[in-house]
Amino acid sequence: MSTSDYLNNAWYAAAWSSEVGRALLERTILEQPVLLYRKEDGAPVAIGNRCAHRFAPLGMGKLIGDTVQCRYHGLRYDGTGRCVLNPHADGMIPPRMAVPSYTLAEKHGLIWLWMGDPHKADADTIPDFSCHTDPALAFVGGVIEMKANYQLITDNLLDLAHGEFVHEGVLSSEAITRSRLQTIEQGTTIYSNRWMPSGEAIPAFAMIFDGHRPGQPVDQWAYMRWDAPAHMLLDVGITAVGQSRGEGAWIYGTDILTPKDTCSTYYFWGITRGYKIDDPAAGMLWREVIKQAFEGQDQVIIEAQQRMLGAQSLEQAGPVMFASDAAAQRARKRLAELVRKDAVPAPQNPDLSALRQRGAQSRSPILPAV
Amino acid sequence: MSTSDYLNNAWYAAAWSSEVGRALLERTILEQPVLLYRKEDGAPVAIGNRCAHRFAPLGMGKLIGDTVQCRYHGLRYDGTGRCVLNPHADGMIPPRMAVPSYTLAEKHGLIWLWMGDPHKADADTIPDFSCHTDPALAFVGGVIEMKANYQLITDNLLDLAHGEFVHEGVLSSEAITRSRLQTIEQGTTIYSNRWMPSGEAIPAFAMIFDGHRPGQPVDQWAYMRWDAPAHMLLDVGITAVGQSRGEGAWIYGTDILTPKDTCSTYYFWGITRGYKIDDPAAGMLWREVIKQAFEGQDQVIIEAQQRMLGAQSLEQAGPVMFASDAAAQRARKRLAELVRKDAVPAPQNPDLSALRQRGAQSRSPILPAV
Amino acid sequence: MSTSDYLNNAWYAAAWSSEVGRALLERTILEQPVLLYRKEDGAPVAIGNRCAHRFAPLGMGKLIGDTVQCRYHGLRYDGTGRCVLNPHADGMIPPRMAVPSYTLAEKHGLIWLWMGDPHKADADTIPDFSCHTDPALAFVGGVIEMKANYQLITDNLLDLAHGEFVHEGVLSSEAITRSRLQTIEQGTTIYSNRWMPSGEAIPAFAMIFDGHRPGQPVDQWAYMRWDAPAHMLLDVGITAVGQSRGEGAWIYGTDILTPKDTCSTYYFWGITRGYKIDDPAAGMLWREVIKQAFEGQDQVIIEAQQRMLGAQSLEQAGPVMFASDAAAQRARKRLAELVRKDAVPAPQNPDLSALRQRGAQSRSPILPAV
Repeated sequence: MSTSDYLNNAWYAAAWSSEVGRALLERTILEQPVLLYRKEDGAPVAIGNRCAHRFAPLGMGKLIGDTVQCRYHGLRYDGTGRCVLNPHADGMIPPRMAVPSYTLAEKHGLIWLWMGDPHKADADTIPDFSCHTDPALAFVGGVIEMKANYQLITDNLLDLAHGEFVHEGVLSSEAITRSRLQTIEQGTTIYSNRWMPSGEAIPAFAMIFDGHRPGQPVDQWAYMRWDAPAHMLLDVGITAVGQSRGEGAWIYGTDILTPKDTCSTYYFWGITRGYKIDDPAAGMLWREVIKQAFEGQDQVIIEAQQRMLGAQSLEQAGPVMFASDAAAQRARKRLAELVRKDAVPAPQNPDLSALRQRGAQSRSPILPAV
Repeated sequence: MSTSDYLNNAWYAAAWSSEVGRALLERTILEQPVLLYRKEDGAPVAIGNRCAHRFAPLGMGKLIGDTVQCRYHGLRYDGTGRCVLNPHADGMIPPRMAVPSYTLAEKHGLIWLWMGDPHKADADTIPDFSCHTDPALAFVGGVIEMKANYQLITDNLLDLAHGEFVHEGVLSSEAITRSRLQTIEQGTTIYSNRWMPSGEAIPAFAMIFDGHRPGQPVDQWAYMRWDAPAHMLLDVGITAVGQSRGEGAWIYGTDILTPKDTCSTYYFWGITRGYKIDDPAAGMLWREVIKQAFEGQDQVIIEAQQRMLGAQSLEQAGPVMFASDAAAQRARKRLAELVRKDAVPAPQNPDLSALRQRGAQSRSPILPAV
Repeated sequence: MSTSDYLNNAWYAAAWSSEVGRALLERTILEQPVLLYRKEDGAPVAIGNRCAHRFAPLGMGKLIGDTVQCRYHGLRYDGTGRCVLNPHADGMIPPRMAVPSYTLAEKHGLIWLWMGDPHKADADTIPDFSCHTDPALAFVGGVIEMKANYQLITDNLLDLAHGEFVHEGVLSSEAITRSRLQTIEQGTTIYSNRWMPSGEAIPAFAMIFDGHRPGQPVDQWAYMRWDAPAHMLLDVGITAVGQSRGEGAWIYGTDILTPKDTCSTYYFWGITRGYKIDDPAAGMLWREVIKQAFEGQDQVIIEAQQRMLGAQSLEQAGPVMFASDAAAQRARKRLAELVRKDAVPAPQNPDLSALRQRGAQSRSPILPAV
């Protein structure tokens, strides 16, 4: 699989819902120029960002009602991508005067685009990130652009044992390194899980676990759910040794990757918490952790890795793998299969909320499918 | 026609006469490195800018009399491109020690280069820009480098109806947009004309037309003459409704484009006026208008258009056209034909001064060929 | 010979000995990523800088004892390039988990790498730069990165007659330009020598020759020794007309070039002097001269030359040569032969110290082989 082979029939996050409004937002998704905005009734729109006339970026233009007016010659396009006004002379509009219109769904606080066959688009196959909008929980999130192929970032996320080395003092713990990676596949969903009983507390989690005393061993878990092409949700937390998860502290970590092109990626991150849900400072703290860990540490090493690879894919460079790469390798294999077959991912989508209830009672790892 | 197919047998503006003197001026014309300077008698010289010995740019060297001394090893070249001094040891000069010499003409305040077959070079086929040096008129001009293929800039200029959208508040008017584009071909000359009776005044022209009262409709015209490969002269002005052009205010706008390479262009612009010819402030005003409109507005949109096209030519990207693109499309077609046939453009070159006299009396559009 | 054909079976300077210690040093040698450091016992190590696991640069990691720990997943490599620790789970190390290890020699104050067949590596074929570490002499040196193919820099050094034009006021003298270049080949060693009797003093040498009176003619010499691929030592000095060299002032100039890639080069420069060997100010003076002449002048012209050539090699661009290019052309020819035959250079390596003794007595040019 070459880096320019994308999975076409899949949902890609284009923006957080909160990023899209009455200002024009330009994004590049799978190398396609995309323009996002909301109509006056609030409905989101995603159309091609390259005017059909002379290819000026429509994002340099302006919104007039529900239409976008190109800054170059004033052609106006509606939310379906059709040109609806030619202000010049006789005002004739050639039938081909249109830009692409993308199938779109707004769900879980994100705008999702479908770049493939529109007849195959089914919003029910968007992986479950309902935690983002669950009123019982509190959410912070953002987007980072990384100069690296999205699969290199997936690799990073499906093996959190990089924490001890990349995230020293923030997300590091010898307990992660020592733990075993358990990989489970269900449909096209892959779980990459680490259960870390009685070990060194991860600093960022020690910080949010009120019951924690420095030096005291703790039980910790990090269960990562992956769906194709690169949509991940991490259930991660800390509790006193032998206590139920509900008595500890936990968060959901969201990591959704959208390829801009073969070597740059939009990284939509989120942190959903069930504690201090009315305290903005608790959210700010996570923003700081993410800034330090993702931008200051992961991004630096992943972009360096990409520079070392140059135009080669990871596979072409012939990596040597070991046990803790199992989940990342399975995800690469699963994705390559889907691409080869031009197939549609089938996320398992267990009920997140029910899973959370069951998990809170548990003293041992609870996996979605168990 | 690919973007790297240039018209070889044609005159290209290399510099304004005033730019070339006893300092070395480096330019890149059709991807060729060119060095320009004047000899002690004032005669302009254009030779290759790459020393034949080890390819250092001669422009880093210095003028000694009528010769250029290379900064690297001190070889001296004369205005014909021949090496005339080797300062080393026996001073032998191999016969091949020479750089190209370009056929050149100084006319209408510009230095023109002929990059093709020197036997086909005829300075009479340089389009008439005699207005630049007409003592009855006043001229200001300059050169802008744009990161865009020169034909994208031609497209821009052959349809001034972009004014309302790109140049809002400066060169905009609903009258331009509403008017019809009239396209006339004579030889390899193309006219792209708009007669705009009784409409909204273009702000920059309202400013120079003393008789204008805000809100009052006016007669306006914009007649653009194009010659291959990309030499344009605009006759543009404003007058009271039903009055002769001579009673209004008008200028010539010069737009001469020289490809540096496939996606960068020297844009030689000029404004020639027949009013306040002794008042430098009138010229400064136009410099400001051009800076704001060409650099601040056209350049931004055209360079964005080039980025959207990437390595594609406009044709390869499959643009959808309408009525007001007729002149731009004809110019592209005419130029492609000339390139394919390796032919020499034959500008119609009507007498500008006579045309101006006739035009001043006229109450209606007067076209060169009428 | 294309610019990407390197001589594989040859020693390349990777760093000055003083640059390599207990901090990780990243270099790119013949397009290979290399990591340099010293073990606790001081022995230098050169291994591949791209982790075999996921290709992160090892240079972002840290030294732990004699091993390098990758910053990404904590794999540790020893000085032979083998992975010796996998901190994850069962700690299994796949047999292929290793990075390249480069044959290395530390000699004459430099770390030399052999990128070719290790069985052909013989440290006796490293050209003699023993002056760097001779206790009777004083040395200053450094490294400059130039954005130019290394052979363009060799060309520059094998014809010092560029001095009058490139180094005006520093290393210029009409005496250099007038002198004849004598080229001698011995084995794969080439000498490019200029004997400059009774001529204008080179400013930088007038400065260090106490007996010099401004305007007075002097005897000067500049004998450059070249060994493949690009290792040069210059014996250069000044003395009163007709006096022995020993009564004048002289230095060794070191110019060792290591290709980073086809158009960038590490330039290891050095100045070794036999006068004021305990006076650091004498060394500082040379640092200043080199900064001004090499970085301020040579680098500017050579990088401009490279930009003019673009992706072309000098040969592909068809240069016109004359007498003073003889040594540079021979060196290019000799190197191309060695590359074509995949052969090993055989430097003549005369005894530098003995040569220096004989030279000091001489009133005329003394060449190594005479």
